[in-house]
Amino acid sequence: MTINVLEEERVDDLGRMGYRIIQNKKKFCFGMDAVLLSWFAKTEENDRVLDMGTGTGIIPLLMKARAEESGIHCSFTGLEIQEDMAEMAERSVRLNGLTEEITIVHGDIKEASQIFGKTSFSVVTSNPPYMPGNHGLKNSDESKAISRHEVLCSLEDVAEQAAAVLQPGGHFYMVHRPFRLIEIVAALRKCRLEPKRIQFVHPFLDKEANMVLVEAVRGGGVMVKVEKPIIVYEHQGVYTRKILEIYGKAEK
Amino acid sequence: MTINVLEEERVDDLGRMGYRIIQNKKKFCFGMDAVLLSWFAKTEENDRVLDMGTGTGIIPLLMKARAEESGIHCSFTGLEIQEDMAEMAERSVRLNGLTEEITIVHGDIKEASQIFGKTSFSVVTSNPPYMPGNHGLKNSDESKAISRHEVLCSLEDVAEQAAAVLQPGGHFYMVHRPFRLIEIVAALRKCRLEPKRIQFVHPFLDKEANMVLVEAVRGGGVMVKVEKPIIVYEHQGVYTRKILEIYGKAEK
Repeated sequence: MTINVLEEERVDDLGRMGYRIIQNKKKFCFGMDAVLLSWFAKTEENDRVLDMGTGTGIIPLLMKARAEESGIHCSFTGLEIQEDMAEMAERSVRLNGLTEEITIVHGDIKEASQIFGKTSFSVVTSNPPYMPGNHGLKNSDESKAISRHEVLCSLEDVAEQAAAVLQPGGHFYMVHRPFRLIEIVAALRKCRLEPKRIQFVHPFLDKEANMVLVEAVRGGGVMVKVEKPIIVYEHQGVYTRKILEIYGKAEK
Repeated sequence: MTINVLEEERVDDLGRMGYRIIQNKKKFCFGMDAVLLSWFAKTEENDRVLDMGTGTGIIPLLMKARAEESGIHCSFTGLEIQEDMAEMAERSVRLNGLTEEITIVHGDIKEASQIFGKTSFSVVTSNPPYMPGNHGLKNSDESKAISRHEVLCSLEDVAEQAAAVLQPGGHFYMVHRPFRLIEIVAALRKCRLEPKRIQFVHPFLDKEANMVLVEAVRGGGVMVKVEKPIIVYEHQGVYTRKILEIYGKAEK
């Protein structure tokens, strides 16, 4: 079996289960937020997991690796609106021999419940665009703009579709920016996705949070847990032990 | 001038401006949450500050001390529903010679806007009861129960009255429990008190948050800042430098 890799693409080792990922240097490449989300999101045996806006397919790949390491069997679906990104993610799936376990679908988040049907997943993940559509400078490259700005779908769209495709009691996991926390909470609760667990990520111990991980449960009660903070750097250029652990690089 | 101190009362030095406070050993005594709130809440020249549910008067006393240290002139009002607590707080104010700057009013939070009039304050603070009225064991002592449980007023009452007595653009500062964060955000926003700054307090760096400080602005925009975490203990029994700083006990 041959997998094509284009000239402007590169193949990176994910450091888990020997999995690799194809990325296009000119398009949106995954960052620490995707790695943190795939660590924060929990799966159980037989979960059916949908990743909304999967991009390179990084989140299903990393979650599949973690599930595999724990001996858990799940199925993963990645939904991506950009056809060339979906096609590249599909090649990464084939590169790792995971076509049975991970399905990449080219389609629009806003139509997720039409594409897959209601209550068809037990877990939904998303690393959506962070910036409101009309806020901040848009990336001149359209593909990156779609990944970063709410050009094609809003926070409300993500929440609405996540709630629609999740079974009652199903779990939604998202990574986002803390400055939008209030909007996130409002958007989720509007769809009866109740935030149950929140974890903030701070670049340094003495800096404000720059990422937030949120777990919500469809139809859950109103109590929430605010987890210990994740600190990225011990000091300039040196990751904390926690980050190395999450990347699977901590010394035993 | 003589200030009566009852047999079951004690007088504690607040370690700021030489101020002291009278507390009743059998009733609710102030904790770290009140100290953190009085540090988190900011005042500017000529602020009119209302503390809703002032108890011993600890928050106006500590905020007055901080304002004094910064050369800022403000007036403070403490509203307390328990007559004996209000009377004791009033004695603390007299003990410190602050009757010009701090007024203690015996009354119900639910009637704050009737007592003081609408838009009559620029800052409101509150360290309200944390536990929902029908949740958890109530303290057998009625006075402590009123301080800890929503027996006489709910989170919604606090938010509604804070919004009513605040001028547009006025600031509301509250300390509460993180497990109620979602309810807090909902209650505040329902009254157009927009959360603008949130800071979590963790007993240890690797433990979930057990206190949350929230600043909301009446009629503010939807962006929020999540501050660096406050960690209470360096290790068992040893406060962090930050906590010592907040208590005014850090070495220079």
